[in-house]
Amino acid sequence: AVRLRVRQALGAREPADAVRVQGWVRSVRSQKEVLFLHINDGSSLESLQVVADPSLEKSDLTFGCAVEVQGKLVKSPHRKQNMELQAETIRVVGPCDIWSFPLKMKERHPLEYVRQFPHLRCRNNTLGALLRIRSEATAGIHSFFQDNGYVHIHTPIITSNDCEGAGELFQIETSREAKESVEKTHFFNVPAFLTVSGQLHLEVMAGAFTHVFTFGPTFRAENSQSRRHLAEFYMVEAELSFTESLQDIMQVMEDLFKTVTSTVLSKCPWDVELFHKYIAPAQKSDITHKLFSSSCRISYSEAVEILKQAPQTFTFKPEWGCDLQTEHEKYLVKHCGEVPVFVVNYPYDLKPFYMRDNEDGPQHTVAAVDLLVPGVGELCGGSLREERLPFLESRLQRLGLTDTFQWYLDLRKFGSVPHGGFGMGFERYLQYILGVDNIKDVIPFPRFSHSCLL
Amino acid sequence: AVRLRVRQALGAREPADAVRVQGWVRSVRSQKEVLFLHINDGSSLESLQVVADPSLEKSDLTFGCAVEVQGKLVKSPHRKQNMELQAETIRVVGPCDIWSFPLKMKERHPLEYVRQFPHLRCRNNTLGALLRIRSEATAGIHSFFQDNGYVHIHTPIITSNDCEGAGELFQIETSREAKESVEKTHFFNVPAFLTVSGQLHLEVMAGAFTHVFTFGPTFRAENSQSRRHLAEFYMVEAELSFTESLQDIMQVMEDLFKTVTSTVLSKCPWDVELFHKYIAPAQKSDITHKLFSSSCRISYSEAVEILKQAPQTFTFKPEWGCDLQTEHEKYLVKHCGEVPVFVVNYPYDLKPFYMRDNEDGPQHTVAAVDLLVPGVGELCGGSLREERLPFLESRLQRLGLTDTFQWYLDLRKFGSVPHGGFGMGFERYLQYILGVDNIKDVIPFPRFSHSCLL
Repeated sequence: AVRLRVRQALGAREPADAVRVQGWVRSVRSQKEVLFLHINDGSSLESLQVVADPSLEKSDLTFGCAVEVQGKLVKSPHRKQNMELQAETIRVVGPCDIWSFPLKMKERHPLEYVRQFPHLRCRNNTLGALLRIRSEATAGIHSFFQDNGYVHIHTPIITSNDCEGAGELFQIETSREAKESVEKTHFFNVPAFLTVSGQLHLEVMAGAFTHVFTFGPTFRAENSQSRRHLAEFYMVEAELSFTESLQDIMQVMEDLFKTVTSTVLSKCPWDVELFHKYIAPAQKSDITHKLFSSSCRISYSEAVEILKQAPQTFTFKPEWGCDLQTEHEKYLVKHCGEVPVFVVNYPYDLKPFYMRDNEDGPQHTVAAVDLLVPGVGELCGGSLREERLPFLESRLQRLGLTDTFQWYLDLRKFGSVPHGGFGMGFERYLQYILGVDNIKDVIPFPRFSHSCLL
Repeated sequence: AVRLRVRQALGAREPADAVRVQGWVRSVRSQKEVLFLHINDGSSLESLQVVADPSLEKSDLTFGCAVEVQGKLVKSPHRKQNMELQAETIRVVGPCDIWSFPLKMKERHPLEYVRQFPHLRCRNNTLGALLRIRSEATAGIHSFFQDNGYVHIHTPIITSNDCEGAGELFQIETSREAKESVEKTHFFNVPAFLTVSGQLHLEVMAGAFTHVFTFGPTFRAENSQSRRHLAEFYMVEAELSFTESLQDIMQVMEDLFKTVTSTVLSKCPWDVELFHKYIAPAQKSDITHKLFSSSCRISYSEAVEILKQAPQTFTFKPEWGCDLQTEHEKYLVKHCGEVPVFVVNYPYDLKPFYMRDNEDGPQHTVAAVDLLVPGVGELCGGSLREERLPFLESRLQRLGLTDTFQWYLDLRKFGSVPHGGFGMGFERYLQYILGVDNIKDVIPFPRFSHSCLL
């Protein structure tokens, strides 16, 4: 018998005689004359209907059990399904203790409920769809960059420098060191941390390949229970050499978003539909709205003016020189008509040392850009990098970081070029296109403060 | 002027009038009548020859500087090159302080030398070629699995369990915790570690999608200075459900190897050639030798017999029940004719709890497989997993791990299926196909004991 995955069986053009399908039972319906099963193997949202003689029923043929079914693949008489499998044999490969199995037949469990079972929730429809979408989006990101001549770089996870110069870091020790309370010797000789961004390492590579990207895990030790933060999350980062304008960076952000989203929509239409039907029905109407059919671009200074003139009062009073808070971001997105909003040119003193000085008078700014999107807030952040040695030297000196970043200064001594780049939070991207409220529901194994299950 | 990358310019079919090329100068040769430059932008190993009037020469137009050249793309009179650029203007975008620049014009620096400069070595021909190959191999791995219906899973980096039950782990704390020597409260409430393998998490997913893979960083805190070990390295791991034979697992290993290697050979022929010409000339003859044109399969017990009958003495005496040492692996590969060797069915007591019991009498084994390759040793390791609840329960109980792995036992209660999988060390793969002796030279930013540069 030919082994077929459920997706292949459902999509078959022709009936076939000796077919074997393996998977897990999603429903059992026993009638006098006929036994109906639905088999799912994760290759598609849709399950395959199996039609069998009631004599094939056994006590351990239940919801959740693993089965192997052999029989004939035939055209289904039902409109909604193309093919169905007429069973000749049904073998229960692994039974399911349905009394203790936390998922129930034909029930639409809330995401909060299945989150309690990180080792089983992938067998839930919603999480199954999510993980297929995540997989296709991952492939789409790699393809987008490869197709556009970018070199993929594995930037390091363990690093001895702290890119942002701020924020809570995770520190690394060998388990032996962790047990010793006395003066420590470090495995790497120096204190080592989990990366918060691959940017500085990408800049090294942009100085050789001009177009580079990375797509890997990044970390924040922030004690946050927010629906938008994780301790371990994925970031796509790109860096481009010979780039003198923020517009170039914004264009890549937009192209990346559009290309990956189109890939997801064409590869997993039914999985995406599930989200728009049951998870975020308000967003169902049109995902293409989100495809940057329109977007808005304002400067930070304009943003502050808009906020100051807002008819509402904010918890944090908007003031030039202060960070935009979530409430501000929300208002700006609303003000622009619930479209993606690029905010450019942030105050010099708010931003890290590597951002390019705009040299623009009393309200001193750097060439930074954040992309805010409806419902999620900051999706991407980027900037031109300071490529001019004297500017970078004096800024690092004021910060007392000259020695630490000698290697970074070196990059400006040996053929420096104007360059810039950005990062996109992958989980926030998924939250945005699918309308998923809690970031814990768009990653296979969420890690956050007080929780590291499995 | 149309902006072209060097690769595009070199591959152009037709001459073009107004062309702009940006990159770094790899050589300057000034003659009375003409000035020759070679420009490289990392898009290919080969540089683009620029021909200019000597009047365009400037003092800062040196090796290593960044330039933008505008002019005409014309057919090159040289046999070895397709196109060359007749410069009309040459702009030095960023000068290079050649006196302190550690790379020198037209010099073939040894890998050990450039390793000292992790922020500059990507501008060396060999490392440039390596990183392009690494990027294509990465894309090839993703494509192989996606094309074969596998779902990509981001298995967690931070984990509260220790897959192997052995080996040195890195432990994680917030930087604040690390400074406190008193009784610790953990960020995640429990001790947390850097992953040594995504296998157990992949098994979760194989119980829903049947075919899954992951490709990410893994960690070992081993105090090793070996040319085959890193503290942070990349592993490709795959897990397959409804698989009852080690042969299936070995077949996927072989298919993965062949497909990815073919991709690399077709996408980066010149980059690969550089390695076979200058780095491992002995291996130049035929990389296709390595494409599993032939391989060998022996059992662990046979391997021990072969070693016992060897005409040489080993530092570690071969003995049934003991681990194969590097010297043993080398001998076995030689014995089999310097081809890839699969060794199957290892002693039960040598291997972790999750491997499937072969129930085979006095010399008790599990269904494990290691793939040994010439020059590198262990490239892949895999096994069938114990899917039978009673076997797993009793083994975990003897190890006192029942509580820790309750969730793992759960996977055997709710539709358990025969399954198995393997992992392939990505750096070792690159070492093998390219003939690179030291693993530090096949990763962008190597991390090992006493070293975490940048």
